[in-house]
Amino acid sequence: MAKNHSEAGISVADLGEFGLIAAIRHLLPPDPSLTVPAGDDAAVLAIADGRVVATTDVLVEGRHFRRDWSGPGDVGVKAAAQNLADVAAMGARPRSLLVGLACPAGLEARWVLDMTRGMVAECGRAGASIAGGDVTAAGCIMLGITALGDLPDGRSPVTRAGARPGDTVAIAGRLGWSAAGLALLQTGRARAGGGRRPDVTSEPTVSQELAVLITAHLRPQPPYPAGPAAAAAGATAMVDVSDGLVQDLGHIAAASGVCIGLDSGLLPVGEPVTAAARLLETGWQAWVLAGGEDHALAATFPAGTALPAGWSAIGGVRAGHGVLVDGAVWEGPAGWDHFR
Amino acid sequence: MAKNHSEAGISVADLGEFGLIAAIRHLLPPDPSLTVPAGDDAAVLAIADGRVVATTDVLVEGRHFRRDWSGPGDVGVKAAAQNLADVAAMGARPRSLLVGLACPAGLEARWVLDMTRGMVAECGRAGASIAGGDVTAAGCIMLGITALGDLPDGRSPVTRAGARPGDTVAIAGRLGWSAAGLALLQTGRARAGGGRRPDVTSEPTVSQELAVLITAHLRPQPPYPAGPAAAAAGATAMVDVSDGLVQDLGHIAAASGVCIGLDSGLLPVGEPVTAAARLLETGWQAWVLAGGEDHALAATFPAGTALPAGWSAIGGVRAGHGVLVDGAVWEGPAGWDHFR
Repeated sequence: MAKNHSEAGISVADLGEFGLIAAIRHLLPPDPSLTVPAGDDAAVLAIADGRVVATTDVLVEGRHFRRDWSGPGDVGVKAAAQNLADVAAMGARPRSLLVGLACPAGLEARWVLDMTRGMVAECGRAGASIAGGDVTAAGCIMLGITALGDLPDGRSPVTRAGARPGDTVAIAGRLGWSAAGLALLQTGRARAGGGRRPDVTSEPTVSQELAVLITAHLRPQPPYPAGPAAAAAGATAMVDVSDGLVQDLGHIAAASGVCIGLDSGLLPVGEPVTAAARLLETGWQAWVLAGGEDHALAATFPAGTALPAGWSAIGGVRAGHGVLVDGAVWEGPAGWDHFR
Repeated sequence: MAKNHSEAGISVADLGEFGLIAAIRHLLPPDPSLTVPAGDDAAVLAIADGRVVATTDVLVEGRHFRRDWSGPGDVGVKAAAQNLADVAAMGARPRSLLVGLACPAGLEARWVLDMTRGMVAECGRAGASIAGGDVTAAGCIMLGITALGDLPDGRSPVTRAGARPGDTVAIAGRLGWSAAGLALLQTGRARAGGGRRPDVTSEPTVSQELAVLITAHLRPQPPYPAGPAAAAAGATAMVDVSDGLVQDLGHIAAASGVCIGLDSGLLPVGEPVTAAARLLETGWQAWVLAGGEDHALAATFPAGTALPAGWSAIGGVRAGHGVLVDGAVWEGPAGWDHFR
């Protein structure tokens, strides 16, 4: 199973559960901190101290990804990224993923292996490994991903509950890129692939400048090191922007019992995002304020903190509750609810 | 949401993602070792030392459970048990679960909450808590469960690879009960519920003696403390019997490079199992040797080890490969492959 051409046309049922697992394990780089790697009843991971950081997410085909838009590598990157970002948002260091996969028995094994390659690549970007997993049959593709992390140097985790009036609100990473890319796909102005994958034959219909938004939607790139860097700089609260900036900062506001005020003039709005807004004759505000899935990190810092590299101020914390944009309640789309 | 009667007829979409999460969290007993409990980007769990034991499993409606046979509490118990047993099979102490749930938006919220109650109960039996989770919509019910554990007293994990010729093979827990219960359900000789659940109106069609097999299938009860006890007694290899005794011992044989010989006269065969075999006019051997899902623990110990409470010898380890039953290759059903 080491070479691509030998994988074509082979289904996961052809390989069987144990053949598929063996082929997946063949793709995992060794990690010396896995004192028991994938393949036993459970893995054993060496971590910094007696504190493990853990988070889980479920991705369902047709809800979180579409196979006509996302290649298997894209799905692997996205599934890994959204979980690893949750670990970074605690100020922690991502260390390992566990991957539960349910898929149709007739699915090409190559899809699973290319997805694994995407996961391995994104884990490598985050400094993490894949510690274990499970595969089973189902009517559609579903992934249950758990990310584990640790807290180096005895540092405390950064929760949502520590923001105080007077703190600075700051952001690391992109806002609105994924939502703009999704809008381009939804309006048919762009097709997935964008010349990046040789197996996609349809031509991209947008410029290279806008194609980066498609890539940002399909393969989010969270700024992992910004999480521990924020913790080291004294961040008082932190969250991963997965459901939309206003909604996710609302979690900090609620947990901390404060009001968060955003200054729209300070929001980092990328050139491709404003270009996409012009093309689609819409505003970029909803993408930047309510679009999630870029997995930027948002945090609060004591006033006067020298922000670490990659972080920029976007507002401040005051007494009160909720999130205000330029002093007013944001009237646009709120964010994402998976059942509505 | 604290009382049952207020949950009737309310769908998960009625509650919404965040309402459902709040109702679930309301059911979770506090665990002081969760220094950050469910509700932040990730949980932080205090463990014995810098080694975390981690395993994941996926359960899919129609594959791993049927809603006409299993009540929601049964599904919660089973999902928790099969993961917690994998932790115990490393000689480790189960500590926490992470629960990813995908389900139809129209599913009654009560189903999810009763499933959570089952999980909480089984976690309590194992000494574990629920550290976090995720909920999302899907066409059927799917669970992605991760169990975390730790290794007390600096003890080494017990893998599949340490069995040596001369070792004793031993078992803790039940064999064939779940498979016999499944056979009773499949042949229509029994209905789920067995007088145990007041919401099931159909009368059980088997005696109380056989009803325990149905319960064993719906709510497996792994012998969690037997895992750390085996490790403390010097177990050289251990595995959780989830796919069938012969198949799972085959993993030890392959990983250790040995042959495992079973003595069928030593296998613990429960009275209800032989009674069910008489009723269905079949043999109990296939249930005991190839039926999984009781989540018994099987381990190898150095010859002469005084086996801990709950463990009984069923065979021995010799040079060679594979698993033999009374000196011969087992010709019955092998065990379970999720894609075949």
